[in-house]
Amino acid sequence: MDNIITSKDNPVIKLYQKLSSSKKERLQYGLFVLEGLRIVEDAIREDSGISHILITQQALAKCSDSVLQADLRDAKTFVISNELGKRIASTDNTQGVFAVCRIPVNRTLSFRSGGRYVVLFGLQDPGNVGMIIRTADALGIDGVILSGSCDLYSPKVIRSTMGSVFRMDIMTENDPDALFDLLNYNNITSSAAVIDPDAEDINSCGFSGSQAVFIGNEGNGLPDDVAVRCSRRVTIPMHGNINSLNAAMAAGILMWELKK
Amino acid sequence: MDNIITSKDNPVIKLYQKLSSSKKERLQYGLFVLEGLRIVEDAIREDSGISHILITQQALAKCSDSVLQADLRDAKTFVISNELGKRIASTDNTQGVFAVCRIPVNRTLSFRSGGRYVVLFGLQDPGNVGMIIRTADALGIDGVILSGSCDLYSPKVIRSTMGSVFRMDIMTENDPDALFDLLNYNNITSSAAVIDPDAEDINSCGFSGSQAVFIGNEGNGLPDDVAVRCSRRVTIPMHGNINSLNAAMAAGILMWELKK
Repeated sequence: MDNIITSKDNPVIKLYQKLSSSKKERLQYGLFVLEGLRIVEDAIREDSGISHILITQQALAKCSDSVLQADLRDAKTFVISNELGKRIASTDNTQGVFAVCRIPVNRTLSFRSGGRYVVLFGLQDPGNVGMIIRTADALGIDGVILSGSCDLYSPKVIRSTMGSVFRMDIMTENDPDALFDLLNYNNITSSAAVIDPDAEDINSCGFSGSQAVFIGNEGNGLPDDVAVRCSRRVTIPMHGNINSLNAAMAAGILMWELKK
Repeated sequence: MDNIITSKDNPVIKLYQKLSSSKKERLQYGLFVLEGLRIVEDAIREDSGISHILITQQALAKCSDSVLQADLRDAKTFVISNELGKRIASTDNTQGVFAVCRIPVNRTLSFRSGGRYVVLFGLQDPGNVGMIIRTADALGIDGVILSGSCDLYSPKVIRSTMGSVFRMDIMTENDPDALFDLLNYNNITSSAAVIDPDAEDINSCGFSGSQAVFIGNEGNGLPDDVAVRCSRRVTIPMHGNINSLNAAMAAGILMWELKK
């Protein structure tokens, strides 16, 4: 890590930018990017397959030993100019610490009896998906399943998870048939979260045995043909206001009740 | 509303921009701004003191009657060029509908026996404050008190409330002495929400009578000298992970338990 990268045409810089902006490139390379000291430290601690660390001259001075010592393992560390750091950053006030990470292959869940799961069906806001993963981690949910939702490895989802992406069991299953087969095979009761006062109140419906709650898209909720395939429909009682809860908040309250 | 405003030096445009960017200007004029069709419609519906409506030529075509008819009451409507709309917008894809609203004078709460309140003490993220107000509205919380938190009337807080700012009872009390006097005078039990396994578990602590829960700053939590003045300390049990819940999510779960 002696030479300082200053050219925007450096291959590592170009790779970072491709991975940051394009899901297609992430899939093709099997890599994604991290930005921020804390999340890079989390990835190092959880041994999450970091291949490259990029650090600005400015950040180098105040960087923790854990980041510098990662270079002694399988990560390659590069020092880059402060200007390049600003160029590749996706936040306004970047800390100047970046990494390239390998996407885990065949990431799946090991379902267990009595497990508690949440299915994010068609969620499109990366901040919501990240916040739900962070909350699932804090509340002790056993796994998160993404189905037709935004890319788990987009920079904004990763950032919003605050490192929980490295601790939570997460899988993607975009085919609804395969998803329901998987749940049925594992004897998991599925609940469709809907906004409907006639659905079962989550205060009284009970969550015993293995359970998965389906959360739908921010604007449109769950498609009817998905909701009817769930074992039942459940709802968070609302208090006569036209606005529903934000999808992440609804998921948080549902996960809280799931874990009781 | 015949002439189209095209100059960035038009006094209404300059006023809008001042109010959008500066808390000091908002306080001085007693006005704040709204952006977006739905929230402007909410403000009209709730009769929330709109003084000016600004609408781009492009938005005018698809605008609802409710917005256009507001001009018949006490709001003045101005059509502005699409370029000016982009200039004053605080979102990337503006809908081209804006309003200037009067800040309610002496906004306060009417405390009631058995009421459920939340105190946001030192919250600095406008998105969190807005999301908590929105959630309080959906869950039927009786009032939100801001203390040392970011400005309720900043555009990002207002936007994040999704219109709940016009329906919720909200007050600001930045002096902790006056705040505790107010709670004591109204016989309200205060609970400090803390991250501490030795505090009372919110699953079992019980919330009977009038209750207020204090939520602290995103990074630092509640100051010790505020927490000790509360009647008790309560906590959301976490599952062995280093990351805490996001402040808005923690507030949402606490409000959910408060309303049971």
